[in-house]
Amino acid sequence: MSNPEIGAKRLPSLGDMPADEFRRHGHELIDWIADYFEHIDDLPVLAQIQPGDLKAQLPTSPPQTGESMDAIIADIDRLIVPALTHWSHPSFFAYFATSTSAPGIFGELLSAAFDAKSMLWRTSPASTELEEVVLDWLRQMIGLDAGMSGIIYDTASVSSMHAIAAARERVEMRIREEGMSGRRDLPLLRVYASEQAHSSIDKGIITLGLGQRALRKIPTDKDFRMHVKALAAAIEEDKRAGFLPFCIVATVGTTSTSSIDPVPEIILISEEHALWLHVDAAYAGSAAVVPELRHVLDGCHRADSLVMNPHKWLFTPFDLSVLYCRHMDLLRRAFSLVPEYLRTPEQDKVRSGSDYGVQLGRRFRALKLWMIIRYFGHEGLAARIREHVRLAKLFASWVEESRDWAVMAPAPLALVCFRACPQLKNESEEASEKRLDALNEAIMHGLNATGKALLSHTKLNDKIVLRLSIGNIRTTEAHVRQVWDLLNEQLRYLHRPSEK
Amino acid sequence: MSNPEIGAKRLPSLGDMPADEFRRHGHELIDWIADYFEHIDDLPVLAQIQPGDLKAQLPTSPPQTGESMDAIIADIDRLIVPALTHWSHPSFFAYFATSTSAPGIFGELLSAAFDAKSMLWRTSPASTELEEVVLDWLRQMIGLDAGMSGIIYDTASVSSMHAIAAARERVEMRIREEGMSGRRDLPLLRVYASEQAHSSIDKGIITLGLGQRALRKIPTDKDFRMHVKALAAAIEEDKRAGFLPFCIVATVGTTSTSSIDPVPEIILISEEHALWLHVDAAYAGSAAVVPELRHVLDGCHRADSLVMNPHKWLFTPFDLSVLYCRHMDLLRRAFSLVPEYLRTPEQDKVRSGSDYGVQLGRRFRALKLWMIIRYFGHEGLAARIREHVRLAKLFASWVEESRDWAVMAPAPLALVCFRACPQLKNESEEASEKRLDALNEAIMHGLNATGKALLSHTKLNDKIVLRLSIGNIRTTEAHVRQVWDLLNEQLRYLHRPSEK
Repeated sequence: MSNPEIGAKRLPSLGDMPADEFRRHGHELIDWIADYFEHIDDLPVLAQIQPGDLKAQLPTSPPQTGESMDAIIADIDRLIVPALTHWSHPSFFAYFATSTSAPGIFGELLSAAFDAKSMLWRTSPASTELEEVVLDWLRQMIGLDAGMSGIIYDTASVSSMHAIAAARERVEMRIREEGMSGRRDLPLLRVYASEQAHSSIDKGIITLGLGQRALRKIPTDKDFRMHVKALAAAIEEDKRAGFLPFCIVATVGTTSTSSIDPVPEIILISEEHALWLHVDAAYAGSAAVVPELRHVLDGCHRADSLVMNPHKWLFTPFDLSVLYCRHMDLLRRAFSLVPEYLRTPEQDKVRSGSDYGVQLGRRFRALKLWMIIRYFGHEGLAARIREHVRLAKLFASWVEESRDWAVMAPAPLALVCFRACPQLKNESEEASEKRLDALNEAIMHGLNATGKALLSHTKLNDKIVLRLSIGNIRTTEAHVRQVWDLLNEQLRYLHRPSEK
Repeated sequence: MSNPEIGAKRLPSLGDMPADEFRRHGHELIDWIADYFEHIDDLPVLAQIQPGDLKAQLPTSPPQTGESMDAIIADIDRLIVPALTHWSHPSFFAYFATSTSAPGIFGELLSAAFDAKSMLWRTSPASTELEEVVLDWLRQMIGLDAGMSGIIYDTASVSSMHAIAAARERVEMRIREEGMSGRRDLPLLRVYASEQAHSSIDKGIITLGLGQRALRKIPTDKDFRMHVKALAAAIEEDKRAGFLPFCIVATVGTTSTSSIDPVPEIILISEEHALWLHVDAAYAGSAAVVPELRHVLDGCHRADSLVMNPHKWLFTPFDLSVLYCRHMDLLRRAFSLVPEYLRTPEQDKVRSGSDYGVQLGRRFRALKLWMIIRYFGHEGLAARIREHVRLAKLFASWVEESRDWAVMAPAPLALVCFRACPQLKNESEEASEKRLDALNEAIMHGLNATGKALLSHTKLNDKIVLRLSIGNIRTTEAHVRQVWDLLNEQLRYLHRPSEK
């Protein structure tokens, strides 16, 4: 059936942007982005604005009538760019440095045009099946066993929350049906994670209604790795108290130091007590793409679930977090709900993403990851991660060789924890600690204020420690050399013992 | 400090795609998308593949070395497009028809390049402040009072879950700290929603550990609106039983029929019992952008929270859901957690998005919404929504005028529930219902299989009912006329009483 009317009757004041205008501005924005990356070294990494500066420049009410794309693009240059902290800057070394990449940007561009909601197989067969295939590729690349299936969520916080929810479902206490309030048959449920675990574990547990007291924090050793004996003792103690331990969260690549919990030992305890072992490898999971770093996931072939974030260290634009799980049936049992309006003839033969989580609609995120893996190839991705690790080790070697600086934690991957520690004569330890904390905070803020690089901090053994994380695809040895020079410049400026 | 080395020392085998290649392929993809939209009417709406077809065409392991963008783009044409159900197609009338738009696509393109994680003010002042401003614009556009602040999440499921979590926090039973398991002081907590409420409310409640029995479903009237008297009676009954009612979810625009719960009456009950009133206006909230439809939000000026989805009916690429909330302090109390590594000097003076939710990292979603509101203007957006409502009413009038079809629910907005109901002589009511259910399912599947349009269904009063939802920016009267012709063609083909 042909319909000659279609396409002809659109009122000029309705519809989308005319095609010629879309092409013109689209090309303009592609060039804008290419220019942005070519000149990004000239931009300050940290936004050089004060709170409220951007708001003050924006109208307080929406435009009644439409404006031109030219005006909007001009405002992106004038207002938005100066208010950005540039995560794409190669001298962004804060938090976990991450990066987007060209094939990933193209993937997002296409996804925005397709605008698929991959809630059911039928609403987006492409994303449903591509997700399965690409996550299986990634599983092979990081050396996980084929017993693990993957599913894409937005963030590691959400991935871990879903893993803990599946573990909660496994306790067989009808929590999905009856909940946890108003019950006298339900003991205190317990989850275990190290003191260095990410705050998302706390948040997931709070959200799930388990409460902060459900999370027992296990002390760590001198290398910030979970104390396995303390874990075992805590579980025994809780069991004696009548509590119900049901889940352990091990971290492979903690946020403060990238320390790696001893999963091969933790797995023995989780198996002994039949607890769900969830591995938070949001950061370090990507390292396993490098054959000689695959050992970071040692022991994970027996874990129940594992989260890794391609948007952290696999050059994937934010957001894309992957949960690998050995019990997709439990995840499904925890979350599946198919109302009549979502029933489809094929539903029993296919996988529907929305069966496995809180979210019904899901973006076509697999597309960008597929394009990235194909464009760079396994070896290309491994080469880039390997280079980041080399640069971090190089930086750590400079710190170690310097009299005024010290490495403060092992640096197994591409994160270095360090601090300035120039000594003063006749200073008490307490005074020294106080002075060094203040000095390091001042160095960080001074350096960040220059806009030439961005670092963040943490606290280890009550000491302020600086963190240098390398993860941007554009970061080169020159950028790392530059931040080292800048750090020493700050130190020289801030630490003048002769004046004291 | 200048550093002439930077930019010069990148190894050719590392780094991102070279700039000239980025420009070339970027321009190519912009034209690809322009062509896609220009010829989208020629594509089948529903993917014409069988489960497993795409998977079977993809390699089972990742490429070792990188491939060219040319090869990848060729595979998008060859493999991905045929496996897509085209949500951007103007004859997509299923579920809630939605649509992306050019300024929204541009916003996503830029966001992917900036790759900002707006967890703290400092990590992305632009997204933090733009989000506040744009959500205040949107608040004004839909006529909500200034007591409501907005925050962006990914989906309505997540928005509603957060609203119910804030309500849970307000019961002052230390659930964040102590959780709900192993407690004898916690009565059964209860939430109320109509039988027509979206499944995301059930899922949110399950996730939060409240359990399905915590959700009491209130019957609806003949127009599928919550029975207010039944709500009041349920709350009274639960209180007498010693339960703790704490939240009511009213729906403005239910998924099955777009019915609108009587919020002005429900608010009186929520106030009488001091319950949190959350309004799920994920679909219909956008209608309030049209001045003469603003009444859909009547009563919401006293609600505690309200979710609306610009990605549903405001031409915003998926995902972008907005939660408006009158008690941001409670939302913050339910979710804020600031570990040392996220502490910043300005944290007490600014808003940090991650304080208000499960997710730590948050995409720069405000950018696309800002670009859309500016490009179309309030009047332009209202004109498009108004046209969709006009088209739906036109379609409903055709259905009403036809002897063989019937409208099955009021159609206040741009969703029409209808079914074929040709009568046969001497048929029992039971036989007739069975026949009509089968006939309507067959019409839907027959129509969808043509690829010329896509409808979905629901069940109302135990009858299979078809749903036609109009929400795509490219949908014109010709598309609506075409689907009506196609429906009648299916009916003529499937209903041949003379042959029976």
